[in-house]
Amino acid sequence: MRILGIDPGIAIVGYGVVDKEGNRYKTIAYDAITTKAHTPLEDRLAKVYVGINQIIQEYKPDAMSIEELFFNNNAKTALTVGQARGVIILAAYQNHVPIYEYTPLQVKQALTGYGRASKMQIQQMMKSMLGLTEIPKPDDVADALAIAVCHGNSMRFNSIKQFGGLML
Amino acid sequence: MRILGIDPGIAIVGYGVVDKEGNRYKTIAYDAITTKAHTPLEDRLAKVYVGINQIIQEYKPDAMSIEELFFNNNAKTALTVGQARGVIILAAYQNHVPIYEYTPLQVKQALTGYGRASKMQIQQMMKSMLGLTEIPKPDDVADALAIAVCHGNSMRFNSIKQFGGLML
Repeated sequence: MRILGIDPGIAIVGYGVVDKEGNRYKTIAYDAITTKAHTPLEDRLAKVYVGINQIIQEYKPDAMSIEELFFNNNAKTALTVGQARGVIILAAYQNHVPIYEYTPLQVKQALTGYGRASKMQIQQMMKSMLGLTEIPKPDDVADALAIAVCHGNSMRFNSIKQFGGLML
Repeated sequence: MRILGIDPGIAIVGYGVVDKEGNRYKTIAYDAITTKAHTPLEDRLAKVYVGINQIIQEYKPDAMSIEELFFNNNAKTALTVGQARGVIILAAYQNHVPIYEYTPLQVKQALTGYGRASKMQIQQMMKSMLGLTEIPKPDDVADALAIAVCHGNSMRFNSIKQFGGLML
């Protein structure tokens, strides 16, 4: 089972590809798609869309795991990131990759069994589970790997939650 | 000059296609793409994306005019609508249709010369300029036609504003 984890954004989209074999993980790839500020929005969205398509076609994941976003009343940021998240979800859908989303709380619980774990604890657990020598930078990339592992761990316990919690 | 006006959303995407010939407008088409609640987000986004592609391929607009959205701290709505707006912009970009955005204030000013015009005044002005016998329903469709006319009117006065005000 190969999982593509995504931390969505417009300037930086973190991604991580992991294989789950039994209860073990193997790290296949991780990096970020980046887009420059002060370029037209449509160019940035197209770069994200093309980049996700390339990643899916290269690594052929069985599932995409993407962070469910919350914004504390920052509607402007939510709109901007939402636009990027829309084209990421579209790319997965068009490539027939099933999409699963997890809240930051679910990621914490799936990795550490503890909802109040710090970012550093999450990153250390992810590093340990994936056998990495160091925590990837920037945080968006480390978060993407954690989201991928979250999906792998959640599959042991749950039937898969679909978008919006509407289909359980 | 054929203009596609878009009022973006996830449940209803209003669209209107108008031709500007000299200072006159001709209405070519208007309707809405609708998606059902309680269906997976990826299906809804794909329906919007496919619908916009079909409209562009059928009507071959020279420009797309889309509403710039503001949300009064409703970050959840902003994220949802942002996702739809992202795939709409992507579809236009992939079809090589130049994209222009206008705030609700700019739409009001372009149609009535007055920033405090009511929604009804805007709709009456749009109906009159397009020679319609009645105001299209729902509001999303009427708004899309107004956004198309806004672009047509703005071209008389302005060089075209690109996304984000970054390229004037």
